[in-house]
Amino acid sequence: MALYPRGTHPGGRFPALPGAGCGKDGRMRVEELETPVPVVDLDVMERNLKRMQDYCDAHGIALRPHIKTHKLPRLAQRQVELGAKGITCQKLGEAEVMADAGLDDIFISYPLIGEAKAHRLAALAKRVRMRVAVDNPLALATAAQAARESGAEIGVVVEFDSGNKRTGVETVGEALALAKEIAATPGLRFDGLMTYPTSAQTRVFLEEARPAFAAAGLEIPMLSGGGSPGAWAVHEIAPIDEMRVGTYIYNDRAMVGAGAATLDDCAMVVWATVISRPAEGRAILDCGSKTLSSDMVAPEVGPGYGLMPDYPDAVITRVNEEHGTVDVSRCAKKPELGERVRIIPNHTCVVTNLHDEVVFARDGEVVGSWPIPARGMTR
Amino acid sequence: MALYPRGTHPGGRFPALPGAGCGKDGRMRVEELETPVPVVDLDVMERNLKRMQDYCDAHGIALRPHIKTHKLPRLAQRQVELGAKGITCQKLGEAEVMADAGLDDIFISYPLIGEAKAHRLAALAKRVRMRVAVDNPLALATAAQAARESGAEIGVVVEFDSGNKRTGVETVGEALALAKEIAATPGLRFDGLMTYPTSAQTRVFLEEARPAFAAAGLEIPMLSGGGSPGAWAVHEIAPIDEMRVGTYIYNDRAMVGAGAATLDDCAMVVWATVISRPAEGRAILDCGSKTLSSDMVAPEVGPGYGLMPDYPDAVITRVNEEHGTVDVSRCAKKPELGERVRIIPNHTCVVTNLHDEVVFARDGEVVGSWPIPARGMTR
Repeated sequence: MALYPRGTHPGGRFPALPGAGCGKDGRMRVEELETPVPVVDLDVMERNLKRMQDYCDAHGIALRPHIKTHKLPRLAQRQVELGAKGITCQKLGEAEVMADAGLDDIFISYPLIGEAKAHRLAALAKRVRMRVAVDNPLALATAAQAARESGAEIGVVVEFDSGNKRTGVETVGEALALAKEIAATPGLRFDGLMTYPTSAQTRVFLEEARPAFAAAGLEIPMLSGGGSPGAWAVHEIAPIDEMRVGTYIYNDRAMVGAGAATLDDCAMVVWATVISRPAEGRAILDCGSKTLSSDMVAPEVGPGYGLMPDYPDAVITRVNEEHGTVDVSRCAKKPELGERVRIIPNHTCVVTNLHDEVVFARDGEVVGSWPIPARGMTR
Repeated sequence: MALYPRGTHPGGRFPALPGAGCGKDGRMRVEELETPVPVVDLDVMERNLKRMQDYCDAHGIALRPHIKTHKLPRLAQRQVELGAKGITCQKLGEAEVMADAGLDDIFISYPLIGEAKAHRLAALAKRVRMRVAVDNPLALATAAQAARESGAEIGVVVEFDSGNKRTGVETVGEALALAKEIAATPGLRFDGLMTYPTSAQTRVFLEEARPAFAAAGLEIPMLSGGGSPGAWAVHEIAPIDEMRVGTYIYNDRAMVGAGAATLDDCAMVVWATVISRPAEGRAILDCGSKTLSSDMVAPEVGPGYGLMPDYPDAVITRVNEEHGTVDVSRCAKKPELGERVRIIPNHTCVVTNLHDEVVFARDGEVVGSWPIPARGMTR
């Protein structure tokens, strides 16, 4: 059954355009929306969701989608309906929003440190199943305090580094020391290992870890890997049991550049308006870094702050806060003043996080818009 | 009189930390706040506000501050209390928030195009004095439609380019053609010229424009310039009548790099926590691009995604969405796991726009927090 049957309007605060497209049937085309505005195509999104679930099912991998990309409880629920085993959040604030909406089995794949975080984790653990990641003793102590305060068991995984050089312990010895302490701490349950992103080093680490853990009398119940760009080949890369992916729901220019999606798989586009054409080779859009972010893609993927699929020779050379400067000098047909144009964002997750609401559409027709309740939940 | 007397709490949604700093007098130190969190020092902010007003007063320039930096009506009101002649907004949504809060005399320094924008501008013009900028005929037509619909007079200025290559007409001839049409359009009032940022070319353009406009029987009532980085020397650069500046209220690393502020003038800092120390030379902070943005500063100003004033040899080499990766290898004293650290943002305006609320402090003591009502108002 479709997520949003045609004609339903799931609510939202987007102002209707007086006199434009709002006929007696209340229909509106996406081209009629006020700009700038992020719009998600529901059919493309559904296809993306199902394809990843099918991939995980085919390879016996549990899918635990990361909600950082959409920050919308209803979409997290949809991911669970399709077969996801729980969800992943980066911050407590995101997890609180998801738990409030009825989501259960939440993994915070992030080291939480401090009294305040322990209190909030405890409050969550009292009402939903919680799992957290640690790569250091203070994060472990925070989880232990939360377990004590809540009286609930909290799953803990140890994060190791597969070459990303961000969080994660660098040696099997460190991982084992943390795992032993987790196993010895009342209220904590050692759930296994995690890494981000999954890489060839993931397998190397695991193969070294297994005998070391076994010698210490510890099983590794599970290996959790992550990252949308490399998701489709993960079964060849490392024997992960669980996959944490976020971007695949919408996709973006970086995903296309990584070969993990096509332009047709990009469910989110930003609609913008050409508000100035001050020179033959220059168009100015009403979207800047406050709409698209300043995130770039890898140089080999392409230049600029987003891709204009209808003007493949255009380059968004600069974003100021509310302006996008486009070099249209190499376009045979150039965008005109006042024209509505589409932009595929470089990085969809940060676009979501800039906007209070997102519009959903199907076949170019607006279905409705939703506020994004976990937007800005950085704590 | 002080804006916020010590001990007052102007409200806000920041969760108090149970048991931390909230003694019987309700006081809390900024170091006790949950992280990541943007914190503004009220005394530094007040000093910044007064210094710019004093500069403008000394040079006979009307100050029309840009609210894009703070997006807070109460701070816009404070700017007006100190002597500002109206305010500047970039988007209609910002202007609507400001008008709702009682601000009057609002300049939208941005080309507005289309039916929906005309309706909203008309609604604003019915209740507050409005002025808009145009650099093309469609923006002019939008303003004309708004004037017709509202029955109110709308001020219109013509934007010209002083070398920034963004919006703005490039020739005096284009500016004059638009000015003539404004003057001939019922409901519109030609208010003069504007540019961004003010530069040496501003004077050149003006000197060419004056005789051309005079020959056409048009006066240029006013020249509006802008840009915080060059504000302090503007009286030597071009004879502007009005100054539009935003960043000066908080300042940031880019302003320091431009020589327009010192580190002590940076009113906004982001407090973050070291959540991982996976290697001797690497610290991971709980703030990434969803907290700091991905905005860089000019290479000559320095590397990285923000400045850590307490660790001048540290470099924030990478931001992912919720992680800041810091190279601490050259720090004699290195930040420890769990430590709270301060970051001066590269670009304060985009930091404001990422957060639902900002905390205000004085002498390191939390005064309160405010939601940021114009956050995300990109339309």
